[in-house]
Amino acid sequence: MNDSVKKIQEMLDDGTAALVTNAPNRFYLTDFNNDAGCVFITRHFAVFFTDFRYIEAAAKISSIPVLESKRLFDEINEQIDKHRIKKILIETDFVTMQVFTRMQESLAAEVLASDILSKKLKELRSVKCKTELQLIEKAQELTDETFSYILPRIEVGRREKDIMLDMELFMRKMGSEGVSFDFIVVSGKNTSLPHGVPSEKRIEKGDFVTMDFGAVIGGYRSDMTRTVAVGFATDEQKAVYSTVLKAQTSAINEIKAGKRCCDIDKTARDIIERIYPNTFGHGLGHSVGIEIHESPAFNTRDDTVLQENTVMTVEPGIYLADRFGVRIEDMVIVKANGVKNITKSSKELLIL
Amino acid sequence: MNDSVKKIQEMLDDGTAALVTNAPNRFYLTDFNNDAGCVFITRHFAVFFTDFRYIEAAAKISSIPVLESKRLFDEINEQIDKHRIKKILIETDFVTMQVFTRMQESLAAEVLASDILSKKLKELRSVKCKTELQLIEKAQELTDETFSYILPRIEVGRREKDIMLDMELFMRKMGSEGVSFDFIVVSGKNTSLPHGVPSEKRIEKGDFVTMDFGAVIGGYRSDMTRTVAVGFATDEQKAVYSTVLKAQTSAINEIKAGKRCCDIDKTARDIIERIYPNTFGHGLGHSVGIEIHESPAFNTRDDTVLQENTVMTVEPGIYLADRFGVRIEDMVIVKANGVKNITKSSKELLIL
Repeated sequence: MNDSVKKIQEMLDDGTAALVTNAPNRFYLTDFNNDAGCVFITRHFAVFFTDFRYIEAAAKISSIPVLESKRLFDEINEQIDKHRIKKILIETDFVTMQVFTRMQESLAAEVLASDILSKKLKELRSVKCKTELQLIEKAQELTDETFSYILPRIEVGRREKDIMLDMELFMRKMGSEGVSFDFIVVSGKNTSLPHGVPSEKRIEKGDFVTMDFGAVIGGYRSDMTRTVAVGFATDEQKAVYSTVLKAQTSAINEIKAGKRCCDIDKTARDIIERIYPNTFGHGLGHSVGIEIHESPAFNTRDDTVLQENTVMTVEPGIYLADRFGVRIEDMVIVKANGVKNITKSSKELLIL
Repeated sequence: MNDSVKKIQEMLDDGTAALVTNAPNRFYLTDFNNDAGCVFITRHFAVFFTDFRYIEAAAKISSIPVLESKRLFDEINEQIDKHRIKKILIETDFVTMQVFTRMQESLAAEVLASDILSKKLKELRSVKCKTELQLIEKAQELTDETFSYILPRIEVGRREKDIMLDMELFMRKMGSEGVSFDFIVVSGKNTSLPHGVPSEKRIEKGDFVTMDFGAVIGGYRSDMTRTVAVGFATDEQKAVYSTVLKAQTSAINEIKAGKRCCDIDKTARDIIERIYPNTFGHGLGHSVGIEIHESPAFNTRDDTVLQENTVMTVEPGIYLADRFGVRIEDMVIVKANGVKNITKSSKELLIL
């Protein structure tokens, strides 16, 4: 988006080109979101190749010049020749062995197996520009609206699956471009599975209901989770809920540019481990943008230093096997002195 | 599915193992459909590694033994050692350069860049067993039902997007595990785009409406397209429709085991080219199964010889730029002497 191509150009020597084929990366570089094409970048030049189906729309939207591709390798070779390219960087985390071999056979320059292009794109995409932040905030606004919409519709006797479909339909009717990921709506015992799939199970009195969901606006995603109680909550349920909430708010309070991801994870993890050991079996969160899981991540191993305008989820959970679980998730924008929390829905334990 | 692992074993020498990491291939080999793990196969042994989240469910469903993986490369190396493996085949059309490099560094056997495992899996998956055919037929039944459901709901003034959401919701409530692909519902001028996206456009009198959609049952997919007229159809619309239908039925009549894919494509293409040259800009069809696009394909280049129990779509189209288009698509099972057409919805031009 905007100066992203320039930032790739800055890492290139004369004689080296970058060939970007992964759809989210192409979208990031060109502002055009489709499923076919590639971006060819040299130190002083950039072009987006796509086929006849997209050429008209791409020409209108793309931030860099667009050329129609018919025989892609031939057209890339023309550029290689024109710009005297000797070496080509590719996305090693996307290009398969088969495509790599075909590139080696067909391209008139050395195709490098180096990770630097993949790493650079990850790093660039982890810091969002103003337009990207606006889209993510808009997606999260719609996600909060969907939560308000569904609350009065969570009723004893309704199936998890129907609640999930109801939420999804509302969100898409309101303008979401599909869903950010397959929604999780689980209840009762099923809440003890961090990655449970909405089932035929009907909501019962005394159930916790965990909903994990998000929207897509302008190609950018949101992600939130809330757990609510139906009818009543036992003291134990309340205690677990408030521990998760304390872990979450404590972690959020620690986040600011300059902190290490693993340290934020530790803040939340320590609070949970002390009272409910071995019940928080996943990372604290992840970056979000064009894709639902981006770099960096809040977990025990990722020591990336947070930068301003990275968007992170903060989603601790406690899962008591075969009994119940709680997860609470907000999305925050990392700032110099803290965060902007863009998830507005209440985190008090709601008893419906 | 069932004897698929055995068929991979038959292609392996002693000392060579296959390492399968692509999710659809893992599902095909193990009967267990999830998003993490790998299958390690030697001539006389096979095991499915997956992590703690899936281990319980996998053990119940998997057709081969399951082991929990914690440090996957270490566990694979134990197997390499135990079975005296020297060489490892991987899926070159799925494994990225980054993963390949990591495998080379971490595995105690030579990782081969050969395509034979990818090719074998494609070939095996292209011929369906009885259980697979039953699931695909069930998915197509639900797709036909969805067509019957939506017909009385295609009304002047309704938005393309709302019709799409209505179809999707019905199908998922009726048991489809998500959608086979993002549904296409386009009307009027938008029908001239083979890959149009449902928009805010409202249905008008005189519109053609093209719907391309499918269900997922037990992990297997269906795919069908119908074009209907709203209010009336002009003589030209009727002529285009009947040409597409003629191309489609003629191609279907040609299909049987032993024929080449490109020849089937040619049958349909010749009929269209004669009357409406350069209006049929895509292939005639593709194989369907666990994924929506599988091998082989009906197009001008694919000279694969059809085998019995391959499932193919047959979907010719005519697209008159900025005016209108028609596509009609059935799914057929290739048989020794013809096909079993599993799409039951009428192909007469319906005027709603």
